[in-house]
Amino acid sequence: MARVYNFAAGPATLPEAVLKKAAAELVEYQDTGMSVMEMSHRSKAYDAIHKQAEALLRELMNIPDDYYVLLLQGGASTQFSAVPLNLLNGSGIADFVHTGNWSKKAIAEAKRYGQVNIVASSEDKTFAYIPELDENKFTENADYFYIVTNNTIYGTRFTSIPDTGNIPLVADMSSNILSEVYDIGKFDVILAGSQKNIGPAGLTIVIVRKDLVGQAREITPVMLNWKTQAEAGSLYNTPPCYCIYMAKLVFEWLKEHGGIKEMQARNEEKAQLLYDFLDQSELFKATVNPRDRSLMNVPFVTGDADLDALFISEAGDQGLVTLKGHRSVGGMRASIYNAMPKAGVEKLVEFMKTFERQHK
Amino acid sequence: MARVYNFAAGPATLPEAVLKKAAAELVEYQDTGMSVMEMSHRSKAYDAIHKQAEALLRELMNIPDDYYVLLLQGGASTQFSAVPLNLLNGSGIADFVHTGNWSKKAIAEAKRYGQVNIVASSEDKTFAYIPELDENKFTENADYFYIVTNNTIYGTRFTSIPDTGNIPLVADMSSNILSEVYDIGKFDVILAGSQKNIGPAGLTIVIVRKDLVGQAREITPVMLNWKTQAEAGSLYNTPPCYCIYMAKLVFEWLKEHGGIKEMQARNEEKAQLLYDFLDQSELFKATVNPRDRSLMNVPFVTGDADLDALFISEAGDQGLVTLKGHRSVGGMRASIYNAMPKAGVEKLVEFMKTFERQHK
Repeated sequence: MARVYNFAAGPATLPEAVLKKAAAELVEYQDTGMSVMEMSHRSKAYDAIHKQAEALLRELMNIPDDYYVLLLQGGASTQFSAVPLNLLNGSGIADFVHTGNWSKKAIAEAKRYGQVNIVASSEDKTFAYIPELDENKFTENADYFYIVTNNTIYGTRFTSIPDTGNIPLVADMSSNILSEVYDIGKFDVILAGSQKNIGPAGLTIVIVRKDLVGQAREITPVMLNWKTQAEAGSLYNTPPCYCIYMAKLVFEWLKEHGGIKEMQARNEEKAQLLYDFLDQSELFKATVNPRDRSLMNVPFVTGDADLDALFISEAGDQGLVTLKGHRSVGGMRASIYNAMPKAGVEKLVEFMKTFERQHK
Repeated sequence: MARVYNFAAGPATLPEAVLKKAAAELVEYQDTGMSVMEMSHRSKAYDAIHKQAEALLRELMNIPDDYYVLLLQGGASTQFSAVPLNLLNGSGIADFVHTGNWSKKAIAEAKRYGQVNIVASSEDKTFAYIPELDENKFTENADYFYIVTNNTIYGTRFTSIPDTGNIPLVADMSSNILSEVYDIGKFDVILAGSQKNIGPAGLTIVIVRKDLVGQAREITPVMLNWKTQAEAGSLYNTPPCYCIYMAKLVFEWLKEHGGIKEMQARNEEKAQLLYDFLDQSELFKATVNPRDRSLMNVPFVTGDADLDALFISEAGDQGLVTLKGHRSVGGMRASIYNAMPKAGVEKLVEFMKTFERQHK
């Protein structure tokens, strides 16, 4: 069948041009006579890919030189433990803003190694908003302060980044990295799984201020100690080479298409198309507080579970797929990452209009 | 240029038929309208790939039902910590046979969490042999006994598996998994990075007896606790989906080509071709004790570093690439995994003969 519009929350749609390029050079990469998958990670050809991937990410995100960029494995879930193991070594207290499933998992791992202070939570309303932050509730000598910039499941995002002063700010940016312009200087650690805006699953990126590296606890597994890969240029052991190659192709595509500033403009336009329709619809309803709405993940409901199921099924017949909401929320969710073209969102809105006429 | 014969130690050559199949379905997989890289890991299409990969591995290796097969990330280097975190919880002592760089790294991680007893070591001769094991040196109540079945860098392998009685036997099989028939019942934990005989780098396989899972220490990061992925069918978080898909294609290729028994016969034939030539050569010399020679990694030298370098360079011109030995050993190393055709080894031997005539 033809390519569909895939609204999956991650792994997620990738630019078709990137996939075609990867397919064309899968068996033989340039003049190497072999696939990127077969290359020694110590070879010149792979080393060029590895370094270019890092350089492009630095350029796209404007990452200052006093930050390491680590290309890791294990997913954000591994970093949920690595963060406290590397940072929870002073007061032993970490501050968290609890905004959903991913902060919950990060909190559980921090508690394994120290004390957690929940500064604010939106659990009372199924995480449908970003809570106000009261600076009086910040721990004065916390080892770090942790947020999830975009909450994939609930469709919320921080529209302003908290100022934590001297306390290192750690951000899980898995589902909105590269989607809007951030001042990296406001963060001390950024972590992100690759499978939304970066490439296929299997790569985890950690951007960390250099002076925060080297203080890990003695019990830290060597591969979870940021120092291990920082000192080895992410080549301490065999990296997920092919994922890094795919990420490089995506980074090249982002650069060709105007970089993050242009992506942000496109993402705002795509999200507005969808939210504007939802806000006037008599059948569909966005579930998130308008101020805190994600540009990447747009959950919505009809209020009738059977109708939701029918919508998802009929949308699938139109080539609009993976619109089912997360099991903890129900309803629908359209994930519209960088690689989702505006035409995909337009087609979705058109289909929602048709469906509404038939069912309101 | 045409496809080369790639003797890299890992990432390593893959079957050309597998690469061609992957290329053909990279942009659109079957009737899904999307790439495997873009599929939700909770989708039916991906779930089928995931389950087939595990089922094929179980079939190929004849893995009994009382073992979990875990599809993980992080490389064997992550498992070097996971093994003690999961198992070093009784006497706190682990027995090791020290046969090279990889046992060294595993020992370092075990020491982080307990006590290590080196049962035997071949460090005295740059690990060019597998040491004899004296059962009197085994720790009676060790929490586990650790070996590396094949040593990629030094080209040695265990030709008989130690009988450790009730003590769990842990084997790092990264560089010879699927290359010869093993009785899985002799092992309690098998770990292997994917990048030699399984597929591209980024997948780590752990085969573990079910009753050894669930005893991890409290300080174990959630992702290093085998229980986490055992209970979730390796879908606790997003797995390295594309690597798993590639592994599945390799497993299918292995099955089509007669399975592990046939691979072992081919590997023995390929290795013998090379060792027979080396043993009669007046220029080249195999570095490993004949009894302990690897079927996968064949190190050799001329004894003259300049001549070694010339050989590597001229071999490269003939499309025989990545023959340089590991930096800790020098000389040459031909890695001849399952996917290296006999024709590649024949061409290498022919070229060695020519080179010998010119330089002896």
